[in-house]
Amino acid sequence: MRVKSKTRNKNILLYADSESDANVLYATRFFCPDPFIFIRTAKGRRIYVMSDLELDRARTQSNAHRVLSLTKYTKLAQSRLGRDPRPADVITAVLRDLEIRGVTVPGNFPVAVADRLRERGIRVSVVRDMFFTERLYKSDDEVEAIRRTMKAAEAGLQAAIEVIRKSTIRYGWVYYRNKRLTAEYLREVVNGTIFDHGCVPVHTIVAPGKDGCDPHNPGKGPVPAHRPLIFDIFPRSERTGYYADITRTVVKGKAPEEVLRMYRAVKAGQALALSKLRHGAKARPIHQAIMNLFQRRGFTTGRVKGRMQGFFHGTGHGLGLEVHEPPRIALNDHVLEDKMVVTVEPGLYYWPIGGMRIEDTVLVTRSGYKNLTRFSKNLEIR
Amino acid sequence: MRVKSKTRNKNILLYADSESDANVLYATRFFCPDPFIFIRTAKGRRIYVMSDLELDRARTQSNAHRVLSLTKYTKLAQSRLGRDPRPADVITAVLRDLEIRGVTVPGNFPVAVADRLRERGIRVSVVRDMFFTERLYKSDDEVEAIRRTMKAAEAGLQAAIEVIRKSTIRYGWVYYRNKRLTAEYLREVVNGTIFDHGCVPVHTIVAPGKDGCDPHNPGKGPVPAHRPLIFDIFPRSERTGYYADITRTVVKGKAPEEVLRMYRAVKAGQALALSKLRHGAKARPIHQAIMNLFQRRGFTTGRVKGRMQGFFHGTGHGLGLEVHEPPRIALNDHVLEDKMVVTVEPGLYYWPIGGMRIEDTVLVTRSGYKNLTRFSKNLEIR
Repeated sequence: MRVKSKTRNKNILLYADSESDANVLYATRFFCPDPFIFIRTAKGRRIYVMSDLELDRARTQSNAHRVLSLTKYTKLAQSRLGRDPRPADVITAVLRDLEIRGVTVPGNFPVAVADRLRERGIRVSVVRDMFFTERLYKSDDEVEAIRRTMKAAEAGLQAAIEVIRKSTIRYGWVYYRNKRLTAEYLREVVNGTIFDHGCVPVHTIVAPGKDGCDPHNPGKGPVPAHRPLIFDIFPRSERTGYYADITRTVVKGKAPEEVLRMYRAVKAGQALALSKLRHGAKARPIHQAIMNLFQRRGFTTGRVKGRMQGFFHGTGHGLGLEVHEPPRIALNDHVLEDKMVVTVEPGLYYWPIGGMRIEDTVLVTRSGYKNLTRFSKNLEIR
Repeated sequence: MRVKSKTRNKNILLYADSESDANVLYATRFFCPDPFIFIRTAKGRRIYVMSDLELDRARTQSNAHRVLSLTKYTKLAQSRLGRDPRPADVITAVLRDLEIRGVTVPGNFPVAVADRLRERGIRVSVVRDMFFTERLYKSDDEVEAIRRTMKAAEAGLQAAIEVIRKSTIRYGWVYYRNKRLTAEYLREVVNGTIFDHGCVPVHTIVAPGKDGCDPHNPGKGPVPAHRPLIFDIFPRSERTGYYADITRTVVKGKAPEEVLRMYRAVKAGQALALSKLRHGAKARPIHQAIMNLFQRRGFTTGRVKGRMQGFFHGTGHGLGLEVHEPPRIALNDHVLEDKMVVTVEPGLYYWPIGGMRIEDTVLVTRSGYKNLTRFSKNLEIR
């Protein structure tokens, strides 16, 4: 049962740039680095209000039914107010012209604009949760876009793995071309490759040893042998705006027994979660099942010596035009449905051993899931 | 006279991620990809409320005076409400604990959260204009960060110019390594180089010929000889978050007389604007002076054959943690002041000749300006 649309047959208003705002990009598929006014009327007509700079491009490259001139409405608002109008004043002028008295806006709509629209007599209804619930369900084109970004992420990861494979071990450290291999160098290899594939990598995590104990530590310094090294890679396609997300953990050399046990648990946890994925599956029992499996194998979660240890993040998250979007696979009431794309990424983190996490991006289907990630899950690189 | 702070001695509240929200990054200098609660009390105490995932990193890597646990306040709000709390409910719980009854938020604060806070009895004052007016005045460290990003941008541009220099002209087209040189290839050269310099280039413009007539057209296809080619490059440093912005126009081969005349006008327009920059200079007369100069030289602005032609964008914009931030150099009442960093980027666009634009990023000083851009402004590449 699909989540009901909250925007159908409403006059919707967006005011943001489409570089950073996923709703604007979803509605327009038009990259514009500056905030612009977008209106979709109750009857489905898409109206853009653009500066002189973007007017012609919007007319030729966008899905707009009408492109209005921001300059025209700015002048109109100016002559009415007798001073430089604010964005909300210009929006009010446009809405009056379109005879629209109330608008539906997303939860992240700027409060300054909303307050002023209300002062000017426009009804503003706020959708608190996901604005375009359609975004939850990925079309074939969207799945393909995510798959392509994943190819770039996997190519980046593969390039780094090749470097590690060609490296040698001396005195407990990994050496490449007679220099100590560092997280920074590996990050450059990953990012450069992703870049060559038309995607933009930001804040790629390459976390060796202790740095891996903190799931969001980007990682730095020399890579120790025989210890876990986490790669968490989440590029965005420059062309489509869609993300992919993959995490792998590797050990150069031989993994100690405790690391092997942790890794097997994480792998088993991921397999267990994947086996439960299908249309209608609930998030809470999936997350709980991994917690239970970890607990049974002796991997407890909680604060030890002032640090969070064990498994203390969600199992996964939706992914699309945002790297983190609904649903979340965690201790909540979200339900997974056909055509949702989610990550499945259990992890275990113990100080000072290190962290490990395995993450795939998958498409939920009627009967199960389709994995959009192909990369192998071998721990050791000899 | 500095623009007065609107946040001093106020209890300020931010709720956003620091990847995309410049105010959060400015206040925290802490990169966090998910929205988090940030409070700066009237007495200047910085309080972060972080998920278990970010708790330890925030404690060790951030400028927080206190880091509170999101989990703790989520549970508190949950037990009070008897249901999953929304972000605003958790924020309310935190504010009550801190005995804060009113908060000051930026104009882009999410309306859904603001509405709910008000329902819960919290006073929400919205700053409509720039939130941290201190951001207008760049510290030495900030100028240095922008200058470093500029180095990356210039290195990218230089790499592309080298390719063009090594190219040859055949049948009116530019050839490199026996293939027609394309905007796409040049963009890869620019972006790859910027990337190697630790910066993230997004939507770099490489606009040959007619594509240059539209200032925001990213550009594509083969590069014609003897015609203008625009490079507009605005990367962001991955480490500091600061942008730089540079535009150059070049012609491979020999520029026709009309192109030369346009280019000289643009260059003269930029020089004129730069000569007027200093502490206290007003934006409107600077922009007007360029318009007048263009007009005197016969370059008119307006809609011709359904397209905007001439000079139809602002002269420049502030730049820092956002690529476009106040002040704007245009027909407005902004005033330039010591320590502001702005671009100066006049352009002329005529169909079907092409577009040309020259852009430097400069620091305004007491007596004039300091150019943070070093790149030459030669038009022709032989």
